[in-house]
Amino acid sequence: MTTTDPASIDPASIDPASTDPASTDWISVARTVAADLAKDAAERDKANKPPFEEADRLREAGLLTLLIPSERGGGGADWRTAYAVIREIAAGDGSIGQLIGYHYLLSWNARFFGGPAVVERLDRAAAEGRWLWGGAFNPRDPDVVLTPEPGGHGFRLDGRKSFATGARVADRLVVGATRSDSGEPLVVFVDPAHPGVVRNDDWDNFGQRLSASGSVEFRSVPVAADDVIGSLSQDDGVLSPFATLVTPAIQLVFVHFYLGIAEGALAAAADYTRSTTRPWLLSGVESATQDPYVLATYGELAVAARATRTLADHAAEAVQQGLDRGHDLTEHERGEIAATVAAAKVQSTKAALDITARILELTGARSTASAYGFDRFWRNARTHTLHDPVAYKLREVGDHFLNGAHPPFTLYT
Amino acid sequence: MTTTDPASIDPASIDPASTDPASTDWISVARTVAADLAKDAAERDKANKPPFEEADRLREAGLLTLLIPSERGGGGADWRTAYAVIREIAAGDGSIGQLIGYHYLLSWNARFFGGPAVVERLDRAAAEGRWLWGGAFNPRDPDVVLTPEPGGHGFRLDGRKSFATGARVADRLVVGATRSDSGEPLVVFVDPAHPGVVRNDDWDNFGQRLSASGSVEFRSVPVAADDVIGSLSQDDGVLSPFATLVTPAIQLVFVHFYLGIAEGALAAAADYTRSTTRPWLLSGVESATQDPYVLATYGELAVAARATRTLADHAAEAVQQGLDRGHDLTEHERGEIAATVAAAKVQSTKAALDITARILELTGARSTASAYGFDRFWRNARTHTLHDPVAYKLREVGDHFLNGAHPPFTLYT
Amino acid sequence: MTTTDPASIDPASIDPASTDPASTDWISVARTVAADLAKDAAERDKANKPPFEEADRLREAGLLTLLIPSERGGGGADWRTAYAVIREIAAGDGSIGQLIGYHYLLSWNARFFGGPAVVERLDRAAAEGRWLWGGAFNPRDPDVVLTPEPGGHGFRLDGRKSFATGARVADRLVVGATRSDSGEPLVVFVDPAHPGVVRNDDWDNFGQRLSASGSVEFRSVPVAADDVIGSLSQDDGVLSPFATLVTPAIQLVFVHFYLGIAEGALAAAADYTRSTTRPWLLSGVESATQDPYVLATYGELAVAARATRTLADHAAEAVQQGLDRGHDLTEHERGEIAATVAAAKVQSTKAALDITARILELTGARSTASAYGFDRFWRNARTHTLHDPVAYKLREVGDHFLNGAHPPFTLYT
Amino acid sequence: MTTTDPASIDPASIDPASTDPASTDWISVARTVAADLAKDAAERDKANKPPFEEADRLREAGLLTLLIPSERGGGGADWRTAYAVIREIAAGDGSIGQLIGYHYLLSWNARFFGGPAVVERLDRAAAEGRWLWGGAFNPRDPDVVLTPEPGGHGFRLDGRKSFATGARVADRLVVGATRSDSGEPLVVFVDPAHPGVVRNDDWDNFGQRLSASGSVEFRSVPVAADDVIGSLSQDDGVLSPFATLVTPAIQLVFVHFYLGIAEGALAAAADYTRSTTRPWLLSGVESATQDPYVLATYGELAVAARATRTLADHAAEAVQQGLDRGHDLTEHERGEIAATVAAAKVQSTKAALDITARILELTGARSTASAYGFDRFWRNARTHTLHDPVAYKLREVGDHFLNGAHPPFTLYT
Repeated sequence: MTTTDPASIDPASIDPASTDPASTDWISVARTVAADLAKDAAERDKANKPPFEEADRLREAGLLTLLIPSERGGGGADWRTAYAVIREIAAGDGSIGQLIGYHYLLSWNARFFGGPAVVERLDRAAAEGRWLWGGAFNPRDPDVVLTPEPGGHGFRLDGRKSFATGARVADRLVVGATRSDSGEPLVVFVDPAHPGVVRNDDWDNFGQRLSASGSVEFRSVPVAADDVIGSLSQDDGVLSPFATLVTPAIQLVFVHFYLGIAEGALAAAADYTRSTTRPWLLSGVESATQDPYVLATYGELAVAARATRTLADHAAEAVQQGLDRGHDLTEHERGEIAATVAAAKVQSTKAALDITARILELTGARSTASAYGFDRFWRNARTHTLHDPVAYKLREVGDHFLNGAHPPFTLYT
Repeated sequence: MTTTDPASIDPASIDPASTDPASTDWISVARTVAADLAKDAAERDKANKPPFEEADRLREAGLLTLLIPSERGGGGADWRTAYAVIREIAAGDGSIGQLIGYHYLLSWNARFFGGPAVVERLDRAAAEGRWLWGGAFNPRDPDVVLTPEPGGHGFRLDGRKSFATGARVADRLVVGATRSDSGEPLVVFVDPAHPGVVRNDDWDNFGQRLSASGSVEFRSVPVAADDVIGSLSQDDGVLSPFATLVTPAIQLVFVHFYLGIAEGALAAAADYTRSTTRPWLLSGVESATQDPYVLATYGELAVAARATRTLADHAAEAVQQGLDRGHDLTEHERGEIAATVAAAKVQSTKAALDITARILELTGARSTASAYGFDRFWRNARTHTLHDPVAYKLREVGDHFLNGAHPPFTLYT
Repeated sequence: MTTTDPASIDPASIDPASTDPASTDWISVARTVAADLAKDAAERDKANKPPFEEADRLREAGLLTLLIPSERGGGGADWRTAYAVIREIAAGDGSIGQLIGYHYLLSWNARFFGGPAVVERLDRAAAEGRWLWGGAFNPRDPDVVLTPEPGGHGFRLDGRKSFATGARVADRLVVGATRSDSGEPLVVFVDPAHPGVVRNDDWDNFGQRLSASGSVEFRSVPVAADDVIGSLSQDDGVLSPFATLVTPAIQLVFVHFYLGIAEGALAAAADYTRSTTRPWLLSGVESATQDPYVLATYGELAVAARATRTLADHAAEAVQQGLDRGHDLTEHERGEIAATVAAAKVQSTKAALDITARILELTGARSTASAYGFDRFWRNARTHTLHDPVAYKLREVGDHFLNGAHPPFTLYT
Repeated sequence: MTTTDPASIDPASIDPASTDPASTDWISVARTVAADLAKDAAERDKANKPPFEEADRLREAGLLTLLIPSERGGGGADWRTAYAVIREIAAGDGSIGQLIGYHYLLSWNARFFGGPAVVERLDRAAAEGRWLWGGAFNPRDPDVVLTPEPGGHGFRLDGRKSFATGARVADRLVVGATRSDSGEPLVVFVDPAHPGVVRNDDWDNFGQRLSASGSVEFRSVPVAADDVIGSLSQDDGVLSPFATLVTPAIQLVFVHFYLGIAEGALAAAADYTRSTTRPWLLSGVESATQDPYVLATYGELAVAARATRTLADHAAEAVQQGLDRGHDLTEHERGEIAATVAAAKVQSTKAALDITARILELTGARSTASAYGFDRFWRNARTHTLHDPVAYKLREVGDHFLNGAHPPFTLYT
């Protein structure tokens, strides 16, 4: 049996071959940042501080502007690359993977709901300012209200969102709001530096602790007419198939950071097994790395990770092709994409939960010391995979398979 | 469909009928203590302080002396009851379930390894002082040395144990030590109040945080000849089948607190689902308690808990019968008991991990708030189920089933 | 590591200790019959003939009259013993386990729905004639009609039942029928030797092939007034809690023959592994019985079987206690018993499907030869476990656990 | 919720987008053949006759010569297409999927072990004669001997192979044989029409019944020197990395027909659920296609199928790239390909077993009638997935992930 040099194994990247060569540089940058984040992820998880410094690491690496066209000052990459970057970052720190994933999606809202002018203006400003986007979009929350100022001088924004990923550390916020006079659901953006924007440090959950997902209040925050990105009620209340890609696109963000959390967990476990785990007293082998049950369990988890990765890449390809179709995208095509993403969501949910729970069987009793923080992978996966119930995603996939039904559109799931 | 009054459901006790009526009073006492522990379990888990106050709750309820014969001042209960009490306490707080479980087992060490005189003396003293026993027995650690003092005036004890459940808050410690001159492995007990006993607050692991399982150092601690409980090398180095029941007996302690953790998790989840969980937006039902997937998942977890409970009770019956056989117990009988306990160990490990991980699917996204502490059940189950690898327990059970082999005896597993 | 003599292992009986000593003789008789059935089970499965000869084996062993009070000429055993006998017979041949299980339940219908006179009369006649009961009770089928003959001279029976377990080889049939004039649902019995009873050899399914579950037609079959056992519409249409025990009692029959199929499969596999399976070429061991993965998998399946057995025994105890309560049984007690049986049904369904599918991993590629018939265990388990959907049993158990709801009564599930 | 026309769903092809457009025509041809095979698959499974007629259907569709370069008279397709065709055929009939899969691999043996001359000669002859290849290669069997005839006039072949897929209906056989004088392991081919080749109809196993995998005996069968394809002991006994691709290539054949069996099972089940399954009496829905548990279970199985398909396609890409590298392929590259195939093997094994066992939950109790033959999918998957133990594949994958080890080369697994 031949072996490769263990030092040359890159367990965070189970299957490098599956990534587009064109995106290699960005992925390599992301891996460097992820390796850096992984070093103190356990300590930062405990400290539970707003991730200002982590946001800076992303900013300085150029990852925040990756999706902006190069002619407008951005990285010029596509969503395939963005998804891969999310996964890599999440392998280093699941919370920061969530942060950058929501950022990418929020940065795309102008394309989903706005016109070319607002897109171009925001692209240029975001590239120039290297903005991190945060969001307050959750439709499960009571809504925020946008009131026209007298004389047509823009609007003011009032209300509260319970969860707003990244808001605490963001440069700009995308906010879903209802226009007070017409009831129209709109998407606006605001500068959180305004004193009327109160971002609370009240995200204290057992996982994804550094995703800065606390509540935000708006108290008479002025919004210029130009800062209204667009409407959630286009064409007499029906969004175009293209605009409704927003939901599978964010669901696939979840898929990629779940997978990243799982791959990061497996890599950390393998490192510990190789360096620290003692062989079991009844095993008859001299190293835990030769234990037949340890090997088979690594096999089981690695297979789950690989199957998830190929499906996640496949779904990324589908979403990218849908985005490329733009306003030519049909309802049927959108439905097929959503069904593919739903399948990837289920698969990644199961894989992430199983892998993060079972790595401890591979590292052993002493690896439960708090210093290692090996429980954080499961806590991270468990927390966000509850965003919407996996049982209903299974139902969606089944309804598509059996009845040809397409997942119903909601802004949430 | 008829329903009982929801208030009358006692989810911590999935199947009251399976407990021996004779033990009902102790179990009722244990439930009261457990309900009290459950109230602040999440806060105490975070605070991570030595469980002095928790030990007092057990002491004042009379649970510490439960296994001591009534004619010597104890509760006069048997191991069936002790196991049930461990399970009930663990349903309220997994750490304290571990604490009392190890206590019971350690209190029995005089019976396994000592003669009737030391048993009687310790029974009376323990009943009088309402002692909590802690232990430093782990044979995976380098051993502690017992050196005879000149002139036959007892011994002194030196060395260190990495993990000693309960030691930090115990009244007496049972210690495994090697006699310096003869190399004989002995069991002794010491009063941890002696200044040479240093109990470190260094148990900081992600689960079972209140089990006080930190390290202990012994620096010239005097041990009277009478305080040597017995030898681990009886009859030319071969322990009797009865003495070797110590290992299945402690393994079954694990089983019962794993099951208690699982039952406590299910009960806490059910309470939250009934009171707080919102129905899913696509569910079409008015209450989460009527969601078809929520109901089926509760069903799945409740079945796992019930199957585990009947097997755990069956194994408790087997261990009790083995203990009752005393020195008439044959090697074959001991082996069959150990195989039964191994099966219960596997079953409870799987059930506890699965139940504690999946309750969150039943309580939903908002239940991940740290205030609820709903991750602690999984952290508790995950931590202690690593004590010895479940894969090797599966191997034991399989070797028994296929080849009629009995589990090899070790002091650890 | 000590081993027992492999020859002394009785793998069909994983845990003999769990059976009531009082029932030992009947169980021993059942094992002898089962061992005999196992010898040619594969051949008989292929031949798919009505099990006349198998019914004779049961009759001659005295197993058919086991539940009849000894003072009326029967075996005087209780339902605990009957369930254990069903399990043992099913370990030898799953179809015949079903046959005897339905027989016992049908023989009890007079107690559920009739009065003491009909019970006594049928007991004595059945004991005298050593009757095998078959049934045509399925309420999922269009019903059979009972028409009063002019002049009060009894009735005639007309109609068809699609599935009637045991009917083809039974001495008497229990039939559910609707009275033509009043619409009352009644239970009657008939002698299938009457020319108006047409029993078709049309049970050709992929599992439980010898359960003789084909269709039956009734063409003007005379039914004496005395042969009306009772009504399914007692007390203004509401059956007593005692009468409705009929459903958990038959569901627990299923549990025991599922478990028997699983235990029989494990025993057959272990025998083959010990005698025939070759060690895998990369295993490094000299016998398949020492392969680490083979051992762990036997462990996994044996644990599933043991947990199922303890829960099945526990449920048998609950049903027996319910039957012993007779007409004092309350609705609440009946509901708790039904919930316990539902849990056992789920557990046994999963265990039987998993064990029967996975034994092949333990016997290996060559064991797929048709001569061994090792697929029949899975085919048997798969076929009958579809009787009613396990998903709805999970829902029942969950609704009981979460909401205190009792399973709704139907005659089917 | 929008729905597509149910008639337009092609459940056999869960994700048509993942196939190479260039191969669309062959895949379309394969689907037509598969649909035809599916019609009488249940009947043919029971009849268990050698698949002469089935081989003709493949031959007439042009599928047998698909891999032969077009300039030599073949279809000019690559292995990506061949794997997809195997999967499609297996969806119609698992046995015939195995038959064509082994055929493709055996047809490639000249490339693995022979030189360009023999490759060209066999390509042209096979295209001309539209040969079906069968094989007798199993190294787990005692070997067959090749004895040089006096005077250098070729050889004669003697011996027996227990399993030789396709042999019974093949036009030419590839045989592994040991040269009597030198002990060199050689690969030869023979015309089974020679009277010394005795092909027995002794394949009677419970699955893959039509794969014609019976035994073959060779009695002084003449083998011309030109008919020796090559040596299994190149370069002083070490095969080149390229030659050893033979094993991952055949393992990936298995993957694709396992997946095909699973996809075929799902498609057949969905068709039955839509047309025939009755809603469960307690479900409250009017059609089984709207049952929440039926939908979620279809979802679960469809996700497993999709994840398997993307990984199987990914592995096909890897194998194709390895084949394209030819003799430049390094040992390291070969090892990575083998590890990827091993992962796909594990994934497809689990998915095929789970899907084929659980479809019955979706079709219901009446679907167990023998006429439907719905058990054949599981019997097919269960039989061939035992070819080599999945536990050791898990070990391979784990050893690669943890230790960077490459799977050891054997001709079998």
